[in-house]
Amino acid sequence: MTNRGVALVAGGAGFIGSHLCTALLDQGWEVLCLDNLLTARPGNLRALKGRPGFTFLRADVTEPLPRDVMGRAKEIDRIYNLACAASPPLYQADPEHTMLTNVIGTSGLLRLAEQANARFLLTSTSEVYGDPEQHPQREDYRGWVNCTGPRACYDEGKRAAEAIAFDFGRMRRAEVRVARIFNTYGPHMDPGDGRVVSNLICQALEGREVTIYGDGSQTRSFCYVSDLVEGLIRLMEATDVALTPVNLGNPEEFTIGELWDRVRFLTGSKAKAVYLPLPVDDPRRRRPDIGRARALLGWLPQVPLAQGLAATVEWFDGELRAAGPLGVSSPRVTGDARLSA
Amino acid sequence: MTNRGVALVAGGAGFIGSHLCTALLDQGWEVLCLDNLLTARPGNLRALKGRPGFTFLRADVTEPLPRDVMGRAKEIDRIYNLACAASPPLYQADPEHTMLTNVIGTSGLLRLAEQANARFLLTSTSEVYGDPEQHPQREDYRGWVNCTGPRACYDEGKRAAEAIAFDFGRMRRAEVRVARIFNTYGPHMDPGDGRVVSNLICQALEGREVTIYGDGSQTRSFCYVSDLVEGLIRLMEATDVALTPVNLGNPEEFTIGELWDRVRFLTGSKAKAVYLPLPVDDPRRRRPDIGRARALLGWLPQVPLAQGLAATVEWFDGELRAAGPLGVSSPRVTGDARLSA
Repeated sequence: MTNRGVALVAGGAGFIGSHLCTALLDQGWEVLCLDNLLTARPGNLRALKGRPGFTFLRADVTEPLPRDVMGRAKEIDRIYNLACAASPPLYQADPEHTMLTNVIGTSGLLRLAEQANARFLLTSTSEVYGDPEQHPQREDYRGWVNCTGPRACYDEGKRAAEAIAFDFGRMRRAEVRVARIFNTYGPHMDPGDGRVVSNLICQALEGREVTIYGDGSQTRSFCYVSDLVEGLIRLMEATDVALTPVNLGNPEEFTIGELWDRVRFLTGSKAKAVYLPLPVDDPRRRRPDIGRARALLGWLPQVPLAQGLAATVEWFDGELRAAGPLGVSSPRVTGDARLSA
Repeated sequence: MTNRGVALVAGGAGFIGSHLCTALLDQGWEVLCLDNLLTARPGNLRALKGRPGFTFLRADVTEPLPRDVMGRAKEIDRIYNLACAASPPLYQADPEHTMLTNVIGTSGLLRLAEQANARFLLTSTSEVYGDPEQHPQREDYRGWVNCTGPRACYDEGKRAAEAIAFDFGRMRRAEVRVARIFNTYGPHMDPGDGRVVSNLICQALEGREVTIYGDGSQTRSFCYVSDLVEGLIRLMEATDVALTPVNLGNPEEFTIGELWDRVRFLTGSKAKAVYLPLPVDDPRRRRPDIGRARALLGWLPQVPLAQGLAATVEWFDGELRAAGPLGVSSPRVTGDARLSA
């Protein structure tokens, strides 16, 4: 494998970040991984730490970047910014830090990109569309976000980060890319952060009662993490991307009932599902229009739900066995947050 | 006049800020005025600097607050945050700084409020509604803002600042107020920042050709600065304000043609108006619903346009005479930005 250059991945110990680091190493990049380890599972780094070309630096992007990074600025070719807690209970625990992570973090990494003459990619989110009135969501939809509510630290933080990135692009301070990531699942998810895929799998594997909110007929769309990572790298490497955000996600919709059927089959669970009322702030469906990613990057998700779920169940099964019978049976999340997909 | 306490006004040398400082001094407050003087007219401070109880500190809120402020933190009772360039050509000159002024500035001043146990007021903007689809705009309208465009540094910066403020409020870190300010005019406006009121008045007073974009039938609503300042102080001092933003502006609409008729009358101008095509990004009308301010604060604008314009024309006339014949004849603003109201 030839050496492609140096890629910095901020938030590289997180769920998506750790898969991105692996894929970049596989493709011949040297990887500088930055993470404050506040919400990342340290286990995500286990397999990476032994690999040649991988360096981990514990750092918080709201602080000045470490000297080890600034000293190597001229070597850096690519900067992926994935740094931010991504599930409501975690990003709401310290909303000011969430906002500053997005704004100061993005600004600081863009300045590094400017200095390093490196290409910069921001992982934004479907949350910039808020509670959308348009389905599926295209990139030119301006969103329906409440900037005064408890989700605003994340939603508005990402919108602000996009604004900074496009300003750096317009002013030719750096070459920028912005991906808007929709729901993603796979190994390395945090079992305790309250997402529906990890909740159902963990409850089933532990033989606990499985909770479904609503009647199970509401729909979600899920992208397997390897597809998502492929999209991020293609977007970074594409050379003819205008100053425009690009949706990355899987547009195929499933009902929560269908999801549970598949998880039950894959886990062999005999658990009964308990149906609870939908919380009032349950997000309505969100589904990407991926026409732009298809046209610009030739990208389409490849992994069907059955296959991705099987890999995810297998990984959670291993994690739960390693952690012992009570390893993850006390999720950090309660109440309405459990529904965040 | 009794001493009411200490009020810090960030951005206190600006158009609205300087009037706010004056009103607070008049009401018996000691005023700590912070400003980086990047976009403020230094002349705005002239009358203030001699007044007892007034202190000016040159400081940029994107940097740590000055020691002179932090050392007096325990004395501070009120913090008004007006710090940010407010017209497109000025806030777009350094969009990253505009964003950081809103986010780091608001976060830093909120931390000061937390430490000082002071009440905090953010001056947000009607720009959080973007190019609105709802008329007039109520505070619960979520807006139609393009987070990737050249106005985003300001619009999204203010939305992010609101998010931080409400998070501090929800977490009881500080008592917060958020005012969404609509178009305001009056003495101390910057003649060079491209607003339609100052443009028309200055062109008329200087005997230059008066430029009107479009056919003059588009409407705007303008609030005289003394009304606005009264609203800000009432909002700050109100004790039963929930965690909700409050629109402050004058809901009365005028066409640009009517505005020009009044300016022509007041200045005695013989200049002919030249009608130029509307730029493609001309904002559609924006008009506040001020029902909430009326209900919560008993506030209603008092100054009719004729009266406010007369005072504004008189002030500009004095400024132009003092500056000499070419004093402000080279506006810093060109092109589409001239239309920003």
